[in-house]
Amino acid sequence: MTLQIQKPLILRALQGERVERTPVWIMRQAGRYLPEYRAVREKCTFLQLCRTPELACEVTLQPIRRFRFDAAILFSDILIPLEAMGAPVEFGDGGPKFTRPVRTRAQVDALRDADPYETMPFVAQSIQLIKKELPAEIPLLGFAGAPFTLFTYLVEGGGSKDFAAVKRMLFQEPALAHGLLERLATAAIGSLRMQIESGCEAVQLFDTWASALAPHDYETFALPYARRVFDELKRFGAPLIYYTNGIGGILEQAATTGATCLSIDWRLDLAEARARVPNLTFQGNLDPHALLGTESAVRAAARRILDANAGLPGHIFNLGHGIFPEAPIAAVEWLVDEVRRYRTDAL
Amino acid sequence: MTLQIQKPLILRALQGERVERTPVWIMRQAGRYLPEYRAVREKCTFLQLCRTPELACEVTLQPIRRFRFDAAILFSDILIPLEAMGAPVEFGDGGPKFTRPVRTRAQVDALRDADPYETMPFVAQSIQLIKKELPAEIPLLGFAGAPFTLFTYLVEGGGSKDFAAVKRMLFQEPALAHGLLERLATAAIGSLRMQIESGCEAVQLFDTWASALAPHDYETFALPYARRVFDELKRFGAPLIYYTNGIGGILEQAATTGATCLSIDWRLDLAEARARVPNLTFQGNLDPHALLGTESAVRAAARRILDANAGLPGHIFNLGHGIFPEAPIAAVEWLVDEVRRYRTDAL
Repeated sequence: MTLQIQKPLILRALQGERVERTPVWIMRQAGRYLPEYRAVREKCTFLQLCRTPELACEVTLQPIRRFRFDAAILFSDILIPLEAMGAPVEFGDGGPKFTRPVRTRAQVDALRDADPYETMPFVAQSIQLIKKELPAEIPLLGFAGAPFTLFTYLVEGGGSKDFAAVKRMLFQEPALAHGLLERLATAAIGSLRMQIESGCEAVQLFDTWASALAPHDYETFALPYARRVFDELKRFGAPLIYYTNGIGGILEQAATTGATCLSIDWRLDLAEARARVPNLTFQGNLDPHALLGTESAVRAAARRILDANAGLPGHIFNLGHGIFPEAPIAAVEWLVDEVRRYRTDAL
Repeated sequence: MTLQIQKPLILRALQGERVERTPVWIMRQAGRYLPEYRAVREKCTFLQLCRTPELACEVTLQPIRRFRFDAAILFSDILIPLEAMGAPVEFGDGGPKFTRPVRTRAQVDALRDADPYETMPFVAQSIQLIKKELPAEIPLLGFAGAPFTLFTYLVEGGGSKDFAAVKRMLFQEPALAHGLLERLATAAIGSLRMQIESGCEAVQLFDTWASALAPHDYETFALPYARRVFDELKRFGAPLIYYTNGIGGILEQAATTGATCLSIDWRLDLAEARARVPNLTFQGNLDPHALLGTESAVRAAARRILDANAGLPGHIFNLGHGIFPEAPIAAVEWLVDEVRRYRTDAL
């Protein structure tokens, strides 16, 4: 007699299998909205938290313990690999800041193509630790910033509203931009490869700010590099999730990255997205601020998204962007409960 | 013999007529990127500028003199009618701020439904003055904030990144939100009606932040009020332009507002937009920050948008969002020159 062990729910859903209920996790689920997370953060800096496997493991597991999400996601930051390349970053109240933005050929050339096992050993260690603690049916997701999105932080020196420095480089010195994007693709590949080799069962590529670009510029400066990352990773067999915040205008293009699953923001109807791109699986797409509603409003909003998939396999419930610090815990409970109650096998 | 006077180019294009070349104007064309505008602004506050017909007329005409755009747009601000309703606003360096956000039933009830001719006589006066100065072939556009977009400023007390206060009200007190939206629709209708009666030949409704909403919420809280505005205005015969920044996910819905023309942002391919909504005219949609490029990059970006319309009538060239203060004058010159050189009648 062979022992039949079923693959975890979310991995089956990511691959488009028909599953008994819709899996759910939340972007930034290990974060400031959780009192137990804030308690850990009071005793260390954000960077210390990322770099200390025991602490990273602890906060990764916190939301699993509380909500029993269908996946854990490694606690880290998309900018960690940039630090490893020699671009020091500070995480303050106003968001991340690079001491010196990267805007010249000399600055690009000065970046290191480092072996992630040497420069970020704590990432592999955290993953190994988390895998030991995590129940077998809850997979661990890894993640990285997509090359273009990493590029925006490096070139702007932090977050940006209008990406003026980014666009100045794209439209005045495209060769320099492509040179930096190549380096960032290599870094993202190295980081994700290490995460998969260390035990992550699926990975998400955050191309959060790619939607700052017009479709033609997306095709030139973002898409080819995201595609290169996925091309290099597909041989590992882990499902590949691609996220952009504001994907409505570039959905069909984003579908050509080689992603297994598109993670979409809330400004696009999920049923419409599925009709426009029929061959992929989808993750999303509740407005994070729907969590500010009453219980009946939160449940109704969740149900509308579940209904938008009626009859279609391949949906992972998530927010359309990361959860925000002021999100009420009770609203997350209502949300998770509503998704769990919704039976997809009865449809 | 009857004298045949042809309607201005942009009015013909807005109605979908085949025209000899693509008309062009720029959102916020009377603004801080112009040295002559900054010279006027040094001597008065922003509100004084809006409220003094001679000054509003002067800055409205500045970009026409310099670039000979195909339309002038009244210099004013979408928040002026809110001030007229009894919600004082200050325009500082950090953007507009309402002294007191409107978040309760009592605060909504305290707003005045004022006659715009009494509370904003300077608007009608500015229009009359501008019309005297403007050549007959250059129409004057009027504008207003759409009800939902005005709502975001009133409820947040200014601009916002995440619209948390807005969404709290929508999802906790929808009846209160609808009550306020009704009042704002009335205000927008009154203001636009006065503008058309005073001489504006087309109007643009700015629903800039409607795209912060999920499509279902857009359908509930933004669309019906934009539609009400256009329903009330259509009898005046002036073309009606509807703008949203980030329209990609709600294009088909926005097309049902009753707008003559959709003004779209740059994160959506114009050819794709025209294919998705074949029966309207379109305005847009250059990335404003494309103006940071080299001359050949600016010209190529403009040409791509013109090419996206190849053979289709009903396109007004514009940016996908307002021009920004650091935009180089030379780049605007390249842009306007490129659009003027492009012959649509040879296609």
